[in-house]
Amino acid sequence: MSRLSKILQPKAIAVIGASRKEGSLGKMFLEAVVRMRFTGTIYPINPKADFIDGIKVYPSLDALPETPDMAIILLAYQYVLPALEELAQKGIKDIIVISAGFKEVGGEGIEREEALNELVAKYNLNVLGPNCMGVFNTDPKFSFNGTFSPTLPAPGHVAYVSQSGALGVAVLELNAHTDLGFSVFVSTGNKADLSDTDVLEFLKEDTNTRVVTMYMESVDKPESFRKVSRELTAAKPVLAVKAGRTASGHKAASSHTGALANPEHIMDGFLKQCGIIRKDSLEELFDAARALSLQPLPAGKRVAVITNAGGPGILSTDAIERAGLELARFSDETIERLTAALPAEAAKGNPVDMIASANEETYSAVTEIILQDRGVDAILLIIVKPPVNCTPRDIAEKLEPVMRSAAKTVIPVLMADRDEHAGMDVFQRLSLPVYSYPESAVAALATMWQYKELQGKMRSGKSESTTAQSGSPMLAAANGQAGIAEVFQLLQDYDIPVAPYLVSDSWDDLRSFLEQTGGNVVLKTANAQIIHKSDAGLLHLHIENETALRTAYEAIRKAVFPKLPADVAPLFLIQQQLTGNSELVLGGKRDDAFGPVVMAGFGGIFVEVLKDVVFRVAPVSPEEALDMLSDIKAQALFDGARGRDVIDRNTLAQIIHNFSRLLSEHPEILEMDINPLIWSAQRNTAIAVDARATLK
Amino acid sequence: MSRLSKILQPKAIAVIGASRKEGSLGKMFLEAVVRMRFTGTIYPINPKADFIDGIKVYPSLDALPETPDMAIILLAYQYVLPALEELAQKGIKDIIVISAGFKEVGGEGIEREEALNELVAKYNLNVLGPNCMGVFNTDPKFSFNGTFSPTLPAPGHVAYVSQSGALGVAVLELNAHTDLGFSVFVSTGNKADLSDTDVLEFLKEDTNTRVVTMYMESVDKPESFRKVSRELTAAKPVLAVKAGRTASGHKAASSHTGALANPEHIMDGFLKQCGIIRKDSLEELFDAARALSLQPLPAGKRVAVITNAGGPGILSTDAIERAGLELARFSDETIERLTAALPAEAAKGNPVDMIASANEETYSAVTEIILQDRGVDAILLIIVKPPVNCTPRDIAEKLEPVMRSAAKTVIPVLMADRDEHAGMDVFQRLSLPVYSYPESAVAALATMWQYKELQGKMRSGKSESTTAQSGSPMLAAANGQAGIAEVFQLLQDYDIPVAPYLVSDSWDDLRSFLEQTGGNVVLKTANAQIIHKSDAGLLHLHIENETALRTAYEAIRKAVFPKLPADVAPLFLIQQQLTGNSELVLGGKRDDAFGPVVMAGFGGIFVEVLKDVVFRVAPVSPEEALDMLSDIKAQALFDGARGRDVIDRNTLAQIIHNFSRLLSEHPEILEMDINPLIWSAQRNTAIAVDARATLK
Repeated sequence: MSRLSKILQPKAIAVIGASRKEGSLGKMFLEAVVRMRFTGTIYPINPKADFIDGIKVYPSLDALPETPDMAIILLAYQYVLPALEELAQKGIKDIIVISAGFKEVGGEGIEREEALNELVAKYNLNVLGPNCMGVFNTDPKFSFNGTFSPTLPAPGHVAYVSQSGALGVAVLELNAHTDLGFSVFVSTGNKADLSDTDVLEFLKEDTNTRVVTMYMESVDKPESFRKVSRELTAAKPVLAVKAGRTASGHKAASSHTGALANPEHIMDGFLKQCGIIRKDSLEELFDAARALSLQPLPAGKRVAVITNAGGPGILSTDAIERAGLELARFSDETIERLTAALPAEAAKGNPVDMIASANEETYSAVTEIILQDRGVDAILLIIVKPPVNCTPRDIAEKLEPVMRSAAKTVIPVLMADRDEHAGMDVFQRLSLPVYSYPESAVAALATMWQYKELQGKMRSGKSESTTAQSGSPMLAAANGQAGIAEVFQLLQDYDIPVAPYLVSDSWDDLRSFLEQTGGNVVLKTANAQIIHKSDAGLLHLHIENETALRTAYEAIRKAVFPKLPADVAPLFLIQQQLTGNSELVLGGKRDDAFGPVVMAGFGGIFVEVLKDVVFRVAPVSPEEALDMLSDIKAQALFDGARGRDVIDRNTLAQIIHNFSRLLSEHPEILEMDINPLIWSAQRNTAIAVDARATLK
Repeated sequence: MSRLSKILQPKAIAVIGASRKEGSLGKMFLEAVVRMRFTGTIYPINPKADFIDGIKVYPSLDALPETPDMAIILLAYQYVLPALEELAQKGIKDIIVISAGFKEVGGEGIEREEALNELVAKYNLNVLGPNCMGVFNTDPKFSFNGTFSPTLPAPGHVAYVSQSGALGVAVLELNAHTDLGFSVFVSTGNKADLSDTDVLEFLKEDTNTRVVTMYMESVDKPESFRKVSRELTAAKPVLAVKAGRTASGHKAASSHTGALANPEHIMDGFLKQCGIIRKDSLEELFDAARALSLQPLPAGKRVAVITNAGGPGILSTDAIERAGLELARFSDETIERLTAALPAEAAKGNPVDMIASANEETYSAVTEIILQDRGVDAILLIIVKPPVNCTPRDIAEKLEPVMRSAAKTVIPVLMADRDEHAGMDVFQRLSLPVYSYPESAVAALATMWQYKELQGKMRSGKSESTTAQSGSPMLAAANGQAGIAEVFQLLQDYDIPVAPYLVSDSWDDLRSFLEQTGGNVVLKTANAQIIHKSDAGLLHLHIENETALRTAYEAIRKAVFPKLPADVAPLFLIQQQLTGNSELVLGGKRDDAFGPVVMAGFGGIFVEVLKDVVFRVAPVSPEEALDMLSDIKAQALFDGARGRDVIDRNTLAQIIHNFSRLLSEHPEILEMDINPLIWSAQRNTAIAVDARATLK
């Protein structure tokens, strides 16, 4: 059972701080509960009042005739902790704290919130807030408005979880007269105890909720959030606006990955891993939620457009193409039937332009024909106000029997004033979400299809790998950097191929490596104390013979001697120089919010100039890694563009997965780059050529 | 004077086809004219009626007491041409043809439209339509509704030009109860005679119009359209939705340019050259138009956010950053004044979070303070419905005196139900466009700033170059391809540098070119008859000495002999092999709609995989070419990324300009690629290394 069950489905509530003072929170709250016709019992607690608006008030918890299963605290901050303790001692463990004056005010408020959390732990409480706007649940079994919002939410199937209380109220207000109906609202406030994860856990089981919308400013407990989200999004769509793109920039970073790790790009990756669809604005969020909550998901992406005017049909076609949906191709039978049903001047292809003479009969007949075409998954039904023949209300009413048996997605676009002739109530009765412009209707449809595909992935997606720890030793730092030999060994411990190499301080070893390799090697210093290996002649490329190797060897010795402690001998790394025509980059970074994150992309210009890289939070399953690869803009390069070798995405995904395990199991690594990682067509795998790791 | 002056500003109108039949166009039209209280005189013409709704009807034009200055034809198609001819003979030259049945129906309709155009030419008429929905003009001097729309448009300062009549009516309907007010509406229909260009010409002079919005499906007469648009957009913003992204694909192309020339990308470039701001949806179009028509343009991009709730403030900040605007930094004085005006818990930075206790006094005081800060160019005024203290109407009323003296852009966001407490009428009186969500308000503000910058460019922008024709000879085709020597000569005629080369059939010439150059040359066949030069050993690179040159020479001779006519000797092109670290591509194509278009981008992966190229319609002025360069996604490469040489944008822009002249003056060229065009740091210019031209 979810930790929010009693808070959202209460039978008897104690209202601590109920008040008879007009305009006070205590008064407004009570009014709101009553106005929504709560199905349970309210026990206002106030030692100074007997009745408020005819409701009996009790002086204390002790005076109550029964023990309520939930309590709401509306007191000034200094009284909150004592009230919590008293409730806990009476066995009331499910509590909403509306009161502000905690972490959000800083200073003493932070201590107060810590004390609150101690009470939570001590008594095993479930506390929502503090500093929140409460909850509501429109399920007729409860009909519980536990906010002080004077606006009654329209009942429906969209849950809304908002970290900002004010945005909760504002959204209710703005949608009071639209077809956006809500099931559950939760204002999470400071999230001292109950977090988004707990809310999502509740919504997973709430049968009245079909779509979840979220306004988030931060993610707490990302691991459990991700786990619950994945379960939830396999069943219901979750859409989110994530606010707070900090412009403050990042700290100086020692790697490509560190420099490119924009918190928003990491968040994008994380939300994708959660199966959550991110939206850029509240308007898009709720536009998509309306269609998702009212209409069935389309089985495919083939859309038919029915219209009584050409212009909106063209706009729809454009929008469908842009959104990655498809214009359906009608069967011959459909075209025959349309030809019989429509005047000669009408267009019988897709879009079906029934022309301006179309009336309610035409709409109903054509919709029925198109619903029966097996090549159609969804219908965009455009109604430009008919100039003479009929009203939108006539059309909606005539559509009623057709819609009752429709099993496909139907989205109406009503380009007409919302007066009494618009028939908005009829559309609502038919569960048809009405849009004003074709573009926003198509955007909503595209989100439905996006979720349909996502749902398949989430249902089949295995949970993250549970492979046993590799047991590879932690890296030791010198100057904050790990030694190259240790880094290479670590990569190999995690099955990430490394170009053949040898670390040695002996000239004979180096020479015999060259002989075995048959030329074309790289020589560089391997002393961990030396950083910036490309400086000052510490890296020598394209060595083909012993003479060249000796020259390089001497040059490096000469350069490193002054930089090494007296008791340390120059150490060399000799490595076969790999050729391949695709350079990749893999990177890792320990993020403050998410822990280890993985970055992937192509190397060179792609990472340095185009910044065409993608992030995910570790652990990254091979499926998630595949998804990651398909987010890379230049992904055509995987398929052999411009004479490059074809890169096997599955192999690469496995290497990304391995690398994410490496990062998860090596908390000593702050930042890491494998750059370049070269694709070898010959060995059919990606091979690390150079790597560096910055340690704690 | 514009050709539309009499049509949009008529004094007396003949209505040919007025009817007393309920629901007929003839009846609806008359009703619409009357309902809007036309300031002129209407003369309905109908031989079978004496009166319609009390208005006197005349049997024929001859029976009229005066000659009307404009006529509207509502007849069935077969009567249109005789009516036109009769009007023309009576000296009535300004005519709207509502009637359909012309080009849009194909077949005979096309001939009918041609005959109409002959009458236009014969009598020097100004005809709008056919197949259009008419016009209106809300200017109180005319108050002319020349459509049959029953919806009265709200008067305002937005002109709307729509190629689709239905979308015209739909937009009026949808906005009947919003603060989007219209000045002029023109449905252009088939554009047989009067086109968008003529409408824009009128709007340039219409003082009642502050913003122009367009729904376009095609551009006619692109040259004059571009000229008039540039004049218009220097004075007023023009926003357009261009519909009809054809998915039909392009024909097989013989060049990179041809293959990449997506009609939509050419359209993007063309609209930029016109100074027109393209929008992706009607909703964005009108959202931006509202703010542009009601508020002054911001002087800069520094935005202040005033709010009574944190969440919308954060969303605004995100949107401001994403849109390329800036969050204003307040002066110390402003922060002091805010501190005095606001409670301790309020945030005095930007966004100013006045917290939930803010009432109308707070809004007015804070707005006044922020208006006086010189570091602020625009204000986003967010009102989340105050829970207790006051109503949005109270706030709007209190703002009235403050707004009267405000000289900055102010955009309110009202997150509350639109009931009587919302005070929408007060906001309207104050010319404040109200938005529901912060994101759309910021998008509108961003468009205002975009236009502000664009206006500067349009005002200072010189018209296209009028340089004299170069007089270079037209190219002659062999196998559809021009000979390389001719192409190189042509480039040089237009001051586009070409890598030093020599064309000759003599071995001695080739050898002496090698000697003078000192090695590193390329040898290829120059016979125009031979295409695909990289095939079959016809191109030899990196020739360093005479022996290598001789080998290449013999190989080419051997390869070309069988392919040449018996009387043609093998011809060679020897060229200095240029080195440079930035390869560019310039391309040209003769487009069906726009004529010659120019493409620019980086070479290699950038053109072939990333398709990072930009189009403009010739002629391209050096200023337009600079703009073009800044549209290239990888433009950071111009500035010397990854150790490349810095590329001088002005030099490159001049070369693009020269190339556009070449294309304009050489209509025999269908497609052309200069690829690669190498940037030479040494010579500080771009140099063509290879080029090909496909001819008619």
